[in-house]
Amino acid sequence: MEQSLETYEKKVRQFFNKDKFVALAGIQIDSVDDVQATVFANVLPQHLNANGCVQGGMLYTLADFCFAILANYKHPATVTQCGHINYLRPAFTSKLKAQAQEAERVGHIVISNVTVYDDKDEVVCLCQFNGFVKDVDKEEYYQQD
Amino acid sequence: MEQSLETYEKKVRQFFNKDKFVALAGIQIDSVDDVQATVFANVLPQHLNANGCVQGGMLYTLADFCFAILANYKHPATVTQCGHINYLRPAFTSKLKAQAQEAERVGHIVISNVTVYDDKDEVVCLCQFNGFVKDVDKEEYYQQD
Amino acid sequence: MEQSLETYEKKVRQFFNKDKFVALAGIQIDSVDDVQATVFANVLPQHLNANGCVQGGMLYTLADFCFAILANYKHPATVTQCGHINYLRPAFTSKLKAQAQEAERVGHIVISNVTVYDDKDEVVCLCQFNGFVKDVDKEEYYQQD
Amino acid sequence: MEQSLETYEKKVRQFFNKDKFVALAGIQIDSVDDVQATVFANVLPQHLNANGCVQGGMLYTLADFCFAILANYKHPATVTQCGHINYLRPAFTSKLKAQAQEAERVGHIVISNVTVYDDKDEVVCLCQFNGFVKDVDKEEYYQQD
Repeated sequence: MEQSLETYEKKVRQFFNKDKFVALAGIQIDSVDDVQATVFANVLPQHLNANGCVQGGMLYTLADFCFAILANYKHPATVTQCGHINYLRPAFTSKLKAQAQEAERVGHIVISNVTVYDDKDEVVCLCQFNGFVKDVDKEEYYQQD
Repeated sequence: MEQSLETYEKKVRQFFNKDKFVALAGIQIDSVDDVQATVFANVLPQHLNANGCVQGGMLYTLADFCFAILANYKHPATVTQCGHINYLRPAFTSKLKAQAQEAERVGHIVISNVTVYDDKDEVVCLCQFNGFVKDVDKEEYYQQD
Repeated sequence: MEQSLETYEKKVRQFFNKDKFVALAGIQIDSVDDVQATVFANVLPQHLNANGCVQGGMLYTLADFCFAILANYKHPATVTQCGHINYLRPAFTSKLKAQAQEAERVGHIVISNVTVYDDKDEVVCLCQFNGFVKDVDKEEYYQQD
Repeated sequence: MEQSLETYEKKVRQFFNKDKFVALAGIQIDSVDDVQATVFANVLPQHLNANGCVQGGMLYTLADFCFAILANYKHPATVTQCGHINYLRPAFTSKLKAQAQEAERVGHIVISNVTVYDDKDEVVCLCQFNGFVKDVDKEEYYQQD
């Protein structure tokens, strides 16, 4: 039985709502479709490092999750093989947003570029992720529980 | 006034105890000296992803913090320019440990390799970090508050 | 005395024509402006690896040079700090083309994404370069000899 | 029929002697065993960039080839998935040497760290390679022609 895009997106969200580290970090999915994924977080004291700006691991977690959402929406199940992050500005900000776009998929490999923005829409990090696509059935994967 | 190594290590630990995201993630410093830094975390449900193993951002945060401890112990203040992480095994484990060793420092650039281990001492991630060293005075930096 | 864009591009090309390894590898500049740089090479037997496709170092050299052209056109002098390359397909091809676009520049750091294409315009490699911008005077730099 | 280690090494060398881009770049194998591979090149004018030091693509080619030798000696056939290079010093030198050591192999993935040295044994580049191991039969692979 075919399902609508809306239902499918809901299932992807439900699945990733089970990510507890992402919940701990206060990261939420804004939107995802075949072109782009957007995730965000409101910055709280618990996200800061010893210098008072957003900690590097928090920034990476936002970017990696954004990649995971896009990649697993398009071709489940995808696992990150390599993550590569460039830090450009210290993130003194009240909000963070990450956007992922797929650059290319060939066979079992998918590459996406992810940009992390602060609350002035300035670029904080630029990332490139390399994922391995297991290519399981979409419907089955997201109905697994 | 010169201070002992022990006192210096204590100041570095005090400084990084102010990292609130690291505290949220439950990551603690085991040891740091001029050769190596070791950090660890006990894995709790809040560290897991939707597949039930440790989330990729948690693994990166552990590695990046381990690099930060070593680099800032040796030459404060160092900020991460690029982080590069390879994921090798899914981390189904009760504990995580990261160890950082400096590969080379030239001018303002420092490169360290970081390995993340599970509770069987198997390698989970291999990382390479590139940091920019601001080269501030050690004693001043760690007495700043 | 201000110079025209055309003259400036010519000077950049003249400067990089002195790159002897790029000449050895048969790589040529197609075009460069503030938005994008394109370089190319005709594939000859000397570019192949033991498996008969284009060698990984040749592909990287093309990508890195493309980044160098764009970065040094926009803000001389830029040196590569980190190069990161993902290989997606074996390059059985008669031609190679690389295109670089700048993702962001902040302070002394510049990040560009570079794509390498084969003769069917299929993506062979995706790269991300991190450069350090020395920020010297454009006219002086390209009139240095 | 089992073959001696010496004969096996000879076959690996014979195979990689067919790498024509490596020959063009003047790169030679010094030694390879299960622990380490070492390759080198005498620096000639053709290896230099427009600033008169060794070109970044030449440095990468040396490192990538060193990884390929080690990885394919240990577990043929290995292809590079990602190459990551950090440039630390401009290479004004008469010789270059690269050394590769495997950090870990898990399933089809192998990670090696490669260091490039100048003629004063100073570190010029630090690299981390991620390879995909096809796991073909060693003897067959190196007797294929």
